Amino acid sequence: MQSLADGLRKDKRIGFVPTMGYLHEGHLALVRKARELSDVVVVSIFVNPIQFGPTEDLSRYPRDFARDAELLEKEKTDIIFYPEAGDVYPDGYSTYVEVKGLEDYLCGKTRTGHFVGVATVVNKLFNIVKPHFAVFGQKDYQQLMIIRQMAKQFALPVDIIPAETIRAADGLALSSRNGYLSTAERAEAPELQRLLNEVRDQVLNLKERNIEALTVIEQKAVAQLAGRGWEPDYIAVRQQSDLAPPNNENLQAGEPLVILTAAKLGKTRLIDNLEI
Amino acid sequence: MQSLADGLRKDKRIGFVPTMGYLHEGHLALVRKARELSDVVVVSIFVNPIQFGPTEDLSRYPRDFARDAELLEKEKTDIIFYPEAGDVYPDGYSTYVEVKGLEDYLCGKTRTGHFVGVATVVNKLFNIVKPHFAVFGQKDYQQLMIIRQMAKQFALPVDIIPAETIRAADGLALSSRNGYLSTAERAEAPELQRLLNEVRDQVLNLKERNIEALTVIEQKAVAQLAGRGWEPDYIAVRQQSDLAPPNNENLQAGEPLVILTAAKLGKTRLIDNLEI
Repeated sequence: MQSLADGLRKDKRIGFVPTMGYLHEGHLALVRKARELSDVVVVSIFVNPIQFGPTEDLSRYPRDFARDAELLEKEKTDIIFYPEAGDVYPDGYSTYVEVKGLEDYLCGKTRTGHFVGVATVVNKLFNIVKPHFAVFGQKDYQQLMIIRQMAKQFALPVDIIPAETIRAADGLALSSRNGYLSTAERAEAPELQRLLNEVRDQVLNLKERNIEALTVIEQKAVAQLAGRGWEPDYIAVRQQSDLAPPNNENLQAGEPLVILTAAKLGKTRLIDNLEI
Repeated sequence: MQSLADGLRKDKRIGFVPTMGYLHEGHLALVRKARELSDVVVVSIFVNPIQFGPTEDLSRYPRDFARDAELLEKEKTDIIFYPEAGDVYPDGYSTYVEVKGLEDYLCGKTRTGHFVGVATVVNKLFNIVKPHFAVFGQKDYQQLMIIRQMAKQFALPVDIIPAETIRAADGLALSSRNGYLSTAERAEAPELQRLLNEVRDQVLNLKERNIEALTVIEQKAVAQLAGRGWEPDYIAVRQQSDLAPPNNENLQAGEPLVILTAAKLGKTRLIDNLEI
């Protein structure tokens, strides 16, 4: 892949979409964006073991390479990079990327080591695929921030291009994990986005934005989800710039905000977010 | 530097020598090696703040850019990359390279965080300079191992080329820190290499190599240094492959060994090593 990329880079622009496979319309929208902006589209399919915790769903994470390959062919993908875990992490593997600060918040708090795993594999994939740019979905908002920060701070010569979240008709953000949901859970799942919209409206309707008011809104939303049988991890109103909790000074100065949430419905952990 | 490198890479081979400046013959030997093997030689001069501990010699580390530039010009260096600390690590910098295992041994044990700092800056310099290969001195044996491991495990497209330690006529390994030594200390300093040679002879003369015998040799050497007024950090016989302490099975199978040492003479910390 590296020597292929070296050859291509002489006169072609390489666009890259890293995925864990089991592709849905959300992934395909990323591929289409890459297709628009590049000469050569590379999609990687790699279920990255080190971004899963010991109690998480690595072994049951859905995989279907034949179907993925067919979908990618339809989108005129030029190259599928499909490495084995043992090739990416041979025995004795011990070199990791730490993105301090950001990785301890929100999803990083519950999923210890998750973002080290994400940053490590994305850095390595960038070194192998050598793209001019890479497209990441905004559904994984914190991931997008961490990768942007890594790319900037490591001086990686790769532009990070965000792409809007693709949703089902009822509003549920597309995710490979949606396949885990039972029929009843699938019917309940759009509640997560509905609640984000409600939280946004409440924030927009505040006479004065301050931490206490935001905390009340967050806590009511958490209680509402829990009352419907979800197991909320967090619903948090944060600064878009760094995902830190805003302070009153920043709030009054009009700091751009984003609401982020992660919650379990049955055994399935769903995430979503909404910029205000 | 990145766009310059992109242009050069189209038809030129880039050789890279990262340094902290205050160049001596040891550095110049690295530059000559790079000159032999490449079309374009890039030398970076950057006293990397994050590889110094809070009690170490960052502020008094010797600097002389004008002299360095003159020396590099004589060696037909094409590009000197000379960034400011604030450009490499802007406010809020938080992305680091962890090389687990290797960084906790030997120098990593005394100099906590040192090798994270080294790996982080070398990774970033590689991303910026985009060399085909980089030359590192064997004097910093553990550093060379860590960089080799990082380059391999991160799939960095950079060949790591080792270069032999350059020594003064009396055997002292050249180092920018030798300038700290008083006349009396400078006269004593070659003792470190003499002792490494003695340790090597003792190991070679063992009837049977085993851990106990090595430990006796190491401890005698430490005592000998201490007796002459040094403050030894370690003298250790290790496996060349991973710098781990060898076990008896490996020793009997003829595992290649290296002796590494770090010791303070007055306020100056010197390191050296010798492959057996």
